[in-house]
Amino acid sequence: MMIDIDTSFIEFSSKGKTDIIDLTEKVASKIRQSGFNEGNVTVFGVGSTTGIGTIEYEPGLVHHDIAEFWQNIAPYGVPYRHNQTWGDDNGASHIRSTAQGSSLTVPFKNREMILGTWQQIIFIDFDTRPRSRKVVVQIIGKK
Amino acid sequence: MMIDIDTSFIEFSSKGKTDIIDLTEKVASKIRQSGFNEGNVTVFGVGSTTGIGTIEYEPGLVHHDIAEFWQNIAPYGVPYRHNQTWGDDNGASHIRSTAQGSSLTVPFKNREMILGTWQQIIFIDFDTRPRSRKVVVQIIGKK
Amino acid sequence: MMIDIDTSFIEFSSKGKTDIIDLTEKVASKIRQSGFNEGNVTVFGVGSTTGIGTIEYEPGLVHHDIAEFWQNIAPYGVPYRHNQTWGDDNGASHIRSTAQGSSLTVPFKNREMILGTWQQIIFIDFDTRPRSRKVVVQIIGKK
Repeated sequence: MMIDIDTSFIEFSSKGKTDIIDLTEKVASKIRQSGFNEGNVTVFGVGSTTGIGTIEYEPGLVHHDIAEFWQNIAPYGVPYRHNQTWGDDNGASHIRSTAQGSSLTVPFKNREMILGTWQQIIFIDFDTRPRSRKVVVQIIGKK
Repeated sequence: MMIDIDTSFIEFSSKGKTDIIDLTEKVASKIRQSGFNEGNVTVFGVGSTTGIGTIEYEPGLVHHDIAEFWQNIAPYGVPYRHNQTWGDDNGASHIRSTAQGSSLTVPFKNREMILGTWQQIIFIDFDTRPRSRKVVVQIIGKK
Repeated sequence: MMIDIDTSFIEFSSKGKTDIIDLTEKVASKIRQSGFNEGNVTVFGVGSTTGIGTIEYEPGLVHHDIAEFWQNIAPYGVPYRHNQTWGDDNGASHIRSTAQGSSLTVPFKNREMILGTWQQIIFIDFDTRPRSRKVVVQIIGKK
């Protein structure tokens, strides 16, 4: 028994405007490669317009319902003080990121994350334009 | 000093419709049983209509205010694209789960979680019907 | 290589009413002091009217937009059942705390947290009055 820590990154492009990307298989693959049998993985979105979470990754939620939920409570396209500070247009993106959260910890055992059958790990790009994104995947485990 | 990891489950029935269940004593008991003195516990809700968080567990919040908050921003009983995908009625349950989050990490020291006096750990069942539920309790600590 | 755990506190006063305090430098300092090179830090808000998260810490968001967001979806100054239970006035504070979350885990490597350039760690005091506050900073890492 030996506990160790493995820190790496997933990099990808995202489209903004509450684009939701399924990271589950990439995270699962990093756990398998690590050789750890039991532990947890922290998935952390780098940047203040990112969101990390879990969802049933199906088109209705991913392409419509989640975006509509956020548009109702923190709409794009209206004035925010943040926009005045920077001449930006993404005040809503920052509010959504802070409320959603950008960090998620998932336990695993027998080399597999203990997720529900219909429960995937997602990155949400809340920004208003396409971006290159980086997510930290940090595994703490034992062999 | 020796760091180790202990992974187990809490299983119970929940009633759905934003039923809120206090897990604090069950989690505390697992920490005491683990023999760890200092570390943290990750409480993870398995399934995409679950929520995990902290609250002052008193009837006003637990039986009324939290349910009303979510009903205002992600109501049950209205159409969602998710419902069209599956012939389901629980689009609101999934939206709430993603926004609330299903993972919580709480530090402990001297075998006790460092919670506020009025701060309990809760499971929220956002689904629209009663379910059998499973929560992962993973402790990383040293003796 | 040796994994260890370091648990300490940050204590400060906060003003309530969704006062947002930047904890980034204090957390970074604890990581540097710990001597750990790689691992993660869990920042946990003690108390059921606290929030922890990340944000671009600039005045527009911090002094206006976030407070307005929460005032729209969980307003101060309206009746809640929680208030009836205790003769309190802070039902909104508890709802916001549960929805925002009070725990955050951030990975670090080469002694530095892997945050975005404009991404800070914040404590939010959702209560309705000034309070003395305590935040747990727990580091798991290797030298």
